Amino acid sequence: MIEYRTERDLIGEKQVPKEAYYGIQTMRARENFPITGYPPHPELIRAFGYVKKAAAMANRDVGVLTVNIADAIIAAADEIINGKFQDQFIVDSIQGGAGTSFNMNANEVIANRAIEILGGKKGEYMRVSPNTHVNMAQSTNDAFPTAIHIAALRLADGLKKELAELIQALKQKEKEFDDVLKMGRTHLQDAVPIRLGQEFGAYQRVLSRDLGRIDRSVGHLYEVNMGATAVGTGLNAKPEYIKKVANYLADITGYPFETAEDLVDATQNTDAYTEVSSALKIMAINLSKMANDLRLMSSGPRTGINEINLPARQPGSSIMPGKVNPVMCEVVNQISFQVIGNDHTISLASEAGQLELNVMEPVLVFNLLQSFSILQNGISVFRKYAIEGMTANIQHCRQMVEKSVGIVTAINPHVGYEVASRVAKEAIQSNRPVREICLERGILSEEELNEILDPKEMTNPGIAGSRFIDGEM
Amino acid sequence: MIEYRTERDLIGEKQVPKEAYYGIQTMRARENFPITGYPPHPELIRAFGYVKKAAAMANRDVGVLTVNIADAIIAAADEIINGKFQDQFIVDSIQGGAGTSFNMNANEVIANRAIEILGGKKGEYMRVSPNTHVNMAQSTNDAFPTAIHIAALRLADGLKKELAELIQALKQKEKEFDDVLKMGRTHLQDAVPIRLGQEFGAYQRVLSRDLGRIDRSVGHLYEVNMGATAVGTGLNAKPEYIKKVANYLADITGYPFETAEDLVDATQNTDAYTEVSSALKIMAINLSKMANDLRLMSSGPRTGINEINLPARQPGSSIMPGKVNPVMCEVVNQISFQVIGNDHTISLASEAGQLELNVMEPVLVFNLLQSFSILQNGISVFRKYAIEGMTANIQHCRQMVEKSVGIVTAINPHVGYEVASRVAKEAIQSNRPVREICLERGILSEEELNEILDPKEMTNPGIAGSRFIDGEM
Amino acid sequence: MIEYRTERDLIGEKQVPKEAYYGIQTMRARENFPITGYPPHPELIRAFGYVKKAAAMANRDVGVLTVNIADAIIAAADEIINGKFQDQFIVDSIQGGAGTSFNMNANEVIANRAIEILGGKKGEYMRVSPNTHVNMAQSTNDAFPTAIHIAALRLADGLKKELAELIQALKQKEKEFDDVLKMGRTHLQDAVPIRLGQEFGAYQRVLSRDLGRIDRSVGHLYEVNMGATAVGTGLNAKPEYIKKVANYLADITGYPFETAEDLVDATQNTDAYTEVSSALKIMAINLSKMANDLRLMSSGPRTGINEINLPARQPGSSIMPGKVNPVMCEVVNQISFQVIGNDHTISLASEAGQLELNVMEPVLVFNLLQSFSILQNGISVFRKYAIEGMTANIQHCRQMVEKSVGIVTAINPHVGYEVASRVAKEAIQSNRPVREICLERGILSEEELNEILDPKEMTNPGIAGSRFIDGEM
Amino acid sequence: MIEYRTERDLIGEKQVPKEAYYGIQTMRARENFPITGYPPHPELIRAFGYVKKAAAMANRDVGVLTVNIADAIIAAADEIINGKFQDQFIVDSIQGGAGTSFNMNANEVIANRAIEILGGKKGEYMRVSPNTHVNMAQSTNDAFPTAIHIAALRLADGLKKELAELIQALKQKEKEFDDVLKMGRTHLQDAVPIRLGQEFGAYQRVLSRDLGRIDRSVGHLYEVNMGATAVGTGLNAKPEYIKKVANYLADITGYPFETAEDLVDATQNTDAYTEVSSALKIMAINLSKMANDLRLMSSGPRTGINEINLPARQPGSSIMPGKVNPVMCEVVNQISFQVIGNDHTISLASEAGQLELNVMEPVLVFNLLQSFSILQNGISVFRKYAIEGMTANIQHCRQMVEKSVGIVTAINPHVGYEVASRVAKEAIQSNRPVREICLERGILSEEELNEILDPKEMTNPGIAGSRFIDGEM
Repeated sequence: MIEYRTERDLIGEKQVPKEAYYGIQTMRARENFPITGYPPHPELIRAFGYVKKAAAMANRDVGVLTVNIADAIIAAADEIINGKFQDQFIVDSIQGGAGTSFNMNANEVIANRAIEILGGKKGEYMRVSPNTHVNMAQSTNDAFPTAIHIAALRLADGLKKELAELIQALKQKEKEFDDVLKMGRTHLQDAVPIRLGQEFGAYQRVLSRDLGRIDRSVGHLYEVNMGATAVGTGLNAKPEYIKKVANYLADITGYPFETAEDLVDATQNTDAYTEVSSALKIMAINLSKMANDLRLMSSGPRTGINEINLPARQPGSSIMPGKVNPVMCEVVNQISFQVIGNDHTISLASEAGQLELNVMEPVLVFNLLQSFSILQNGISVFRKYAIEGMTANIQHCRQMVEKSVGIVTAINPHVGYEVASRVAKEAIQSNRPVREICLERGILSEEELNEILDPKEMTNPGIAGSRFIDGEM
Repeated sequence: MIEYRTERDLIGEKQVPKEAYYGIQTMRARENFPITGYPPHPELIRAFGYVKKAAAMANRDVGVLTVNIADAIIAAADEIINGKFQDQFIVDSIQGGAGTSFNMNANEVIANRAIEILGGKKGEYMRVSPNTHVNMAQSTNDAFPTAIHIAALRLADGLKKELAELIQALKQKEKEFDDVLKMGRTHLQDAVPIRLGQEFGAYQRVLSRDLGRIDRSVGHLYEVNMGATAVGTGLNAKPEYIKKVANYLADITGYPFETAEDLVDATQNTDAYTEVSSALKIMAINLSKMANDLRLMSSGPRTGINEINLPARQPGSSIMPGKVNPVMCEVVNQISFQVIGNDHTISLASEAGQLELNVMEPVLVFNLLQSFSILQNGISVFRKYAIEGMTANIQHCRQMVEKSVGIVTAINPHVGYEVASRVAKEAIQSNRPVREICLERGILSEEELNEILDPKEMTNPGIAGSRFIDGEM
Repeated sequence: MIEYRTERDLIGEKQVPKEAYYGIQTMRARENFPITGYPPHPELIRAFGYVKKAAAMANRDVGVLTVNIADAIIAAADEIINGKFQDQFIVDSIQGGAGTSFNMNANEVIANRAIEILGGKKGEYMRVSPNTHVNMAQSTNDAFPTAIHIAALRLADGLKKELAELIQALKQKEKEFDDVLKMGRTHLQDAVPIRLGQEFGAYQRVLSRDLGRIDRSVGHLYEVNMGATAVGTGLNAKPEYIKKVANYLADITGYPFETAEDLVDATQNTDAYTEVSSALKIMAINLSKMANDLRLMSSGPRTGINEINLPARQPGSSIMPGKVNPVMCEVVNQISFQVIGNDHTISLASEAGQLELNVMEPVLVFNLLQSFSILQNGISVFRKYAIEGMTANIQHCRQMVEKSVGIVTAINPHVGYEVASRVAKEAIQSNRPVREICLERGILSEEELNEILDPKEMTNPGIAGSRFIDGEM
Repeated sequence: MIEYRTERDLIGEKQVPKEAYYGIQTMRARENFPITGYPPHPELIRAFGYVKKAAAMANRDVGVLTVNIADAIIAAADEIINGKFQDQFIVDSIQGGAGTSFNMNANEVIANRAIEILGGKKGEYMRVSPNTHVNMAQSTNDAFPTAIHIAALRLADGLKKELAELIQALKQKEKEFDDVLKMGRTHLQDAVPIRLGQEFGAYQRVLSRDLGRIDRSVGHLYEVNMGATAVGTGLNAKPEYIKKVANYLADITGYPFETAEDLVDATQNTDAYTEVSSALKIMAINLSKMANDLRLMSSGPRTGINEINLPARQPGSSIMPGKVNPVMCEVVNQISFQVIGNDHTISLASEAGQLELNVMEPVLVFNLLQSFSILQNGISVFRKYAIEGMTANIQHCRQMVEKSVGIVTAINPHVGYEVASRVAKEAIQSNRPVREICLERGILSEEELNEILDPKEMTNPGIAGSRFIDGEM
C-alpha cells in the first residue's frame, strides 16, 4: 500500500506519494496532462540539472542563498546530471503552462533531494523551498528555454558525430566507385554517362553542407536568457547574478554560454529553435532524396535498374520467399517525413507566441528533441547497415552505358544540335547504335567517333574530340 | 491625361479616376495592398455579382429598397455575372480587412454602374450608395463567404467534369492493358506478376473516390450565411430578407443554397473550406503517386524500366538531342505540390480565426480557388497529352516476368515458406530459373510446376495448382 | 544470465532469448531500427490478434490449415486480443520494410505461443511456422493495413465518445450563457453585441460537424484488403478464404468489415488514411481556434478582456505568485499543432507510395494512431478541467457593451451608412455615447433610440426599431 | 489576321506567329502547360539575359562561337536585361521538363532577336540557332539554376533593403516608447510591468537576426553550376569556358559568382533553395507573431486592450460605421501564411529530386520568387502604413499597471514565494491593491513597499529594495 504525504499550494492541498521526490505541482500537472504518455526527453531532464546547479552557484555567490542550502541544491542537481531520478520526472511531454510543470517538477525533485541531503524529510519545504530556493531568481520563462538550449546542444553533438561518420563512409564509396561508369539519368530518362563515384561525391557534399548548417544553427543556442525571469526585464535577478549564472553554465556544461544581449527579445522569440529545426528539415530532405536514389539504383534485382546492391538485412516479405528489400533506406525516408512533419509543428508553435512569451514551447521542444534523436539513430544504422556494405554491379552499369543513345550528346559541338537530333531519332527508332548511324551517314569519321564517344571522357568537363573543332562551326 | 473625381469616406477624401467604376475604398485598398499583383479570381468577381443581385432582389421584396434602385443594382450585377467589368476589380488577392476591400470594390462598381443606368454620373452616391444600397442588410462577413461558396462551387463543377474524363480515360486503359502481363513491384523490388490493366484499374478507382470526396466536400458549401451581417446575429437583416436572399441565390445560380442553421457559427468558422481543401489535397497526393508511377514505368528507354511509352510532347533537353521526358507527369507532380502547399496556407489561415470572424479569408480563398483551377487545368492536359496516347511495351513486360524470381511465391502453399526460401536463394545466387531448381531438387514435378508457375494465373486470387494440396500439409 | 535459442532464416542464424515469444525476424528488426524507442501502439498489437485469428479461422474452414494448428493459433491470438504479450512486441514504431517487422513479430509471438499450447517448446517451428501457418494466405501487405483499420476504428470509437461529451458540455454552456450579453468582436475590434451563449453554440456546432466528418471518414476503413496478399492479385489466397476472412473479422471485432472491391487498388493506395487524418486535422484547427478564443476571453484578469473565468488548475508561474494560466486551453493548442504536423507527415508518407505498395505505412500509422490518442486524451481533460467549470463575468460583459461604439450599426437602416459613420466618428473622438450624439444632432428621437439601441434586440436577426422605416429611405 | 511561320523540331512542325520572337518549343510548352496563367517572374526573365550573355562571352573567348554571332547574342541578351521582350516569355510558371521550356523560350527569343540584329528574319536559325549557339555549352540543368540564383539574389537585395528600413522604423519606436510603462503579459495573463519600448526592441532584434539569416542564406547562391551541362560532368563544356563564364557572370551582375566546387552535386541538389526558403519562413513566423501582438495591443478601442493606436488606413466595415481595423497587420499575417505554405511546396519539390536532377525546379522557383516579392511588398507597406504612424495610449497603459496584481512578484525575494502567494490570492479575491494588504498584514513597511513596488524599477534587472535583504532569508 502506498503511503502519502500532504502538500499545499495556491490552489489547495493534495496527497503525494510519501516516497516521491516530486511534489504537489507535479501531481497537478500529471492529472491535468495525460496526453502522450511520453515523459520529458532524458536530455531535457539532465539539462534542468545543469540549470538549477548554475543558478544555485550564482545565487550563493551574490549572497541571496545561504551556502548550506546552495550546496544541497548543487549536490541534488549533480545527481540529476548524472542520470539519477529520471523516473521522478513524470509530467507529459505535451503540456499547458509554457513548461512551468517541467520546471516545477525539477524544482520539487531537487528541493526534496536537497532536504534529504540536509537531513530532513521529503516535503519539509521550510528547509528548501522549490520556489523560493531552487527556483530563486528564475522563472520558467528563463530556466526552461535555457534547459532546451543545453539539451539541444548535447543532442546536436551526438548527431554531428554520426553525420560526420556517414559523410566519411560516403567519401569512402566515392573513392571505391570512382571507376564505375554508369548511365546518368535526368527525369528518370537516359541522359549521359557519369561515374558512380561522382554520385557518392554529390551525396557526401550535400551532407557536409548539412553538417555545417546544423553546426551554425546551434551556435545561436549559446545565448541564454537566464536572468530574464518572468518577461525578460530581469525583475528579481541581480545583474551580478545574471553574469555569474551564464558563466557557471558555461563552466559546468563546457558550452560557451553567454547572456543574451536583450533578455526581453530572448524570452519571447523562438527563432533560434525554428532555425535549428529548419537545418534538420533541410538535411531530412537531402537524406530522403539520397535514400530514394539508392532505392532506385538497387531496384530489381531482375526487373529494375540494379546498379548497386544493398546489404541484405532481413527477409523482405512474409509471403515472398527470397525477397530482400531496401529497408534501411526506407527507414531513412520515414525518419525524414517525421522530421519534416515535426518542423511543421514547430513552426506552428513558434508562430503562436504572444507578447512576452511563447507558451507553446513544450510541444516545440518535444518535436525538436525527437528530430535530433531519430536523425542520429537513423543515420547511424543507415551508415552501418546500408552504406558501408554496399557494392556495385560494375559490368551491368557499363553495359547500360554502351547500349544507350544519350552519348549522342557528345557529337553536338561537332555537328550541331539539329543534326545530332536526327541521329538520335534514327538510333532510337531503329534500335541501332549512335556510332553506326554516324558512320553510315558520313557524319563523322571512325577516328573522330573513337575520340568523341569515349564514355569515360564524357564524365569530365571538356569537349570530347575538341581538336576536331575549328572554332568557326 | 487622366481626369479625376473626388470621393470622401470616414478617413478623408481621395481622387478617383473619373472613368473608373470603382471608388474611394477600392483606391485605398489598392494603395494599402500592393502585394501579389494578382487581382481576384474571375469566378470570385462573378460570384459577387450573384450575391449583390440576390440581396437587391430580397431587399426589394421586403420593402427596404425601392424598386428602381433595386432594378438598377440587379442590372449592374447581371453585367458582372456576364463577365463585364473584370478590369474594374483591382484590389489584390492578398489583403487585410477580411475581404472588405473585395466587397467594397464590388459595391462601388455596382453602385456606379447602377447610377449610370439610372441616368446619373459616377460618384453620385446619393442616387445609389455602395454601402447603404448595394450592401444593404449585408456585411462583408456574410457577402464575402457567400461569394466564396459560389466561386468554389462553380470551379468544382469544372474540376469534377475534367476529373470524370480522366477517370474515363484510365478505364479505357484498364481495358486496353488488361492482357499485358508484367512484373509487380513492392519496395521497387521484384514481387509477383500483375497485369498492367490492373494497375490502371487501381488508378481510376482511387480517383473515383477522389471525385466522390470532392463532391461530398463541396456539398457543405450549399449552406450560406447571408443575413448574418456583422457577427452572425443578423442585426439589420429582417428574417424575411434572410429567407428570400437564400432562395434568390439558389434560383439565379442553380445551386440549392439555403441559410445556414446557425449564422454565428457560419460566420466565424471556416471548416467548410478546410474540408474542401483537404479533399483537393488528398487527390493531389493520389495524382502525384500516379504520376510518379508513370514516370517509373516509362523510365529508360534503354536503361530504365521501360514498360510503357508516354506520348512525346516536346524535345526534352536543350543539350541532349533525341531526349524526350515525361513532362506531363512532371507538371502533375508540381501541381500536386502546389496544392499541398496551398492546403497548408489554408490550414494556417483557418486556425487564425478569432472570436466572431476569420479575417484571414482573403489568403484562404486565393489558395483555394487556385487549387481548383490548377488541378482542373492540369488534369485536362494530363489526360489529353499523357494518358490517352500511352502505349505498352508488351513483349518487354512479359520478358521481365519470365526472368524474375518472384514467381517462387506460388510454390509456398505447396512446399512451405522455408523450402521456397531456399529455392529462391539458390535461384538468385546461381542466376538460374526457379523452375529448373525445383525440378533438379525434386521439389515439384514438371506437371505441378506447369500449373503452379503459370504467370497469368498468378494475377487472380487462388492457389495455383491447388489440386495438389491435400489440406494437411 | 539470459539463455538463448538459435533460430535461422534466409539471411543466416541468430541467438534469441530462450524465453522470448518473438523470434529471429523480430530480433533483426530490433537491431535494424533503434529509432524512436516507441513500441507499436497497444491497439495496433491487439489488432494483429484479430487479423491472425480471423485468418486462421478462414484457412481452417477452406481446408488448408489443420484444425489443431488453427485452434492453437486462434487461442494464442485471443490472448493478444485480451492484452497479453504486449511486452513481446519490441519492434520500433518507425521501421523500414512496410510493416513486415510488425507482421513477423506478431507471426512469431503467435507461433511460439501456439507451439506452447500444442505442448511444444518455443522455436519448434515445424509444429507451427510463423510464415507457413500463422501468416498463411497473407502478406504483410494485406495483414498490416487490415490491422491499421481495426486499430484506427477502435481509437475512433474512443475519440468520438469523448468528443460527444465535449459537445454536450458546450451545449450546456450555450444554454447557461444564453443571457450573457457581451460585445462581439471582429478583427479583435469592437463590433456589435452578441450573447456568450451564441458563441458557445457556434463552438458546439463546428465540433458536431467534426464528429460527423470523423465518423464518415472512418467509414471507409470497413473495406479491408485481406486476401490481396503481396500485390493485390490474391496469389495464394483462395476466393472462399477471402470471403470468409472478412466475415470472420466482422464477427469477432463487431465492425461491418467487407472485402475491398478491388484488392490491387486497396493494397497500393492510402487515401483512406489521409482522409481520416484530414478529418482529425480539421478538428484540430477548429479546436485550436476555440482554445484561442477562450484564452482571449479569459485574458487578464485585470488588464485583459476578462469576460470568462477558467477553473484554476495549477499555479501558473514558478516566480509570479497568484498567477493562474489557461493551461488546459494551451495544451489543446499544442495537441492541435501536433495533429496538424502529424497530418503533414502522413501526407508525405502517402505521396511516397510506389507501384503496388506504399512502404511508408509504418510512419503513417504511427502518426495516425498518435493523433487519435492525443486528441481523445486532450478533449477529455479539456472538457473536465476547462469547459465544465467555466463561469462568466456577467456584469463586466454588459458594461463593455454599454460603453462601446459598435451599437451605432443599428442606426444604419434608419439614417444610412454615411450619417451613421459621422456619428461613430464623433463618438470615438469625443469619447461620448452614440445615443447622446444622435439626440444632440437631432438624428433620431429618444423613443426611436430606445428601441433601436436595445442591445439584446441586436443579437437576433431583424432591424431594430423597424417600424420607423418607411421602405423608401 | 495573324500571319505564321513554320518551324520544325524533333517532334514535328508547328505554326508560330510570324512576329513572335519565341519559336516552336515555346509554342509546344504553351500548349502543354496552361496551368496557372502566370508567366515567369520578371526577374527570372531578366536573369536568363545575364546567363545567356555571359555564356556567349565565354564561348566567344574560348573560340567555339564566332565573334559576330556572339555579339548579336550579347546585344539581344542586353535588351532582355534591360526589361525588353517580357511579353515574349509566355510559358507558364508551373511546367514539366525541369525548366527546359523557360530555357528554350529564352534561347528562342534571343536567337530570333540576334538573327534580326544580324539582318535576318525570325526563324532563320541557320544564322543563329537557339540550341547550337545561344545554348552553346549549356544545358537547362545549368542555365536554369544559375538564372534562379541571379533572380533570387536580386530579389533578396530588394527585400533586405525594405527589411532594414522596417528595422529602423522599429528602432525609432523602441526609442519613442522607451518611457511607456505597461503591463507585461504571459499566457495573455497579467504578469509584471514592462516598457512598450522594450517590446519594440525585441521586435527589431528578431528581425535583425532575420536580416542576417537571409543574408547568410543567399550567400550560398554565389556558387553556380554553369559548365555542369546535362548532369554535372561538364560534357561539351571546356574547362576554360567554365572558368570564364562564372567570371563574366560576376562582372555583369555585380555578384561574386564562382563555379561550384562539385558540379555534379550542384546540379542535383537543391538545398541552397530550401535554405533560402527556410530563412524566409522563419522571418514570416516572426513577422506573424509581431503582427498578432500589434493586433492584440490595438484591440478595442473600448472593449479590448487598447494600448496602441494603428493609423486608420481604410474604413473597416461595409456595415459597421466608424470601425477601423488593423488591416496592415492582417495582410502581414496572410503574407506569412503564404510564405510558410510556399516553403512547404518548396520542401516537397526539393525532396522529389531524383538521381542527377531535380525536375521539380519550376514550381520551386515559382514559390521562392513569390515569397521574396510578397515579403518585400508587404514589409514596405507595413512599415509605412502601420509602424511609422503608430501611437501609444500612455495613460491607459500606466493605469493598467497600477491596478494589476502582478507587481506582487517583486516582494518574492523579501518574503518568499509562499507568503507572496497568499498576498496575491487575497488581492485578487478581495479586489484590493497588493500594497494595502502587505501593510495591513504587517508583511512589509511603507518604506519598503515604496521602494519594492516601484513599477519603473521593475522593468530592469535587479531586486527592487534589495537593501532590505540580509542574504540569509
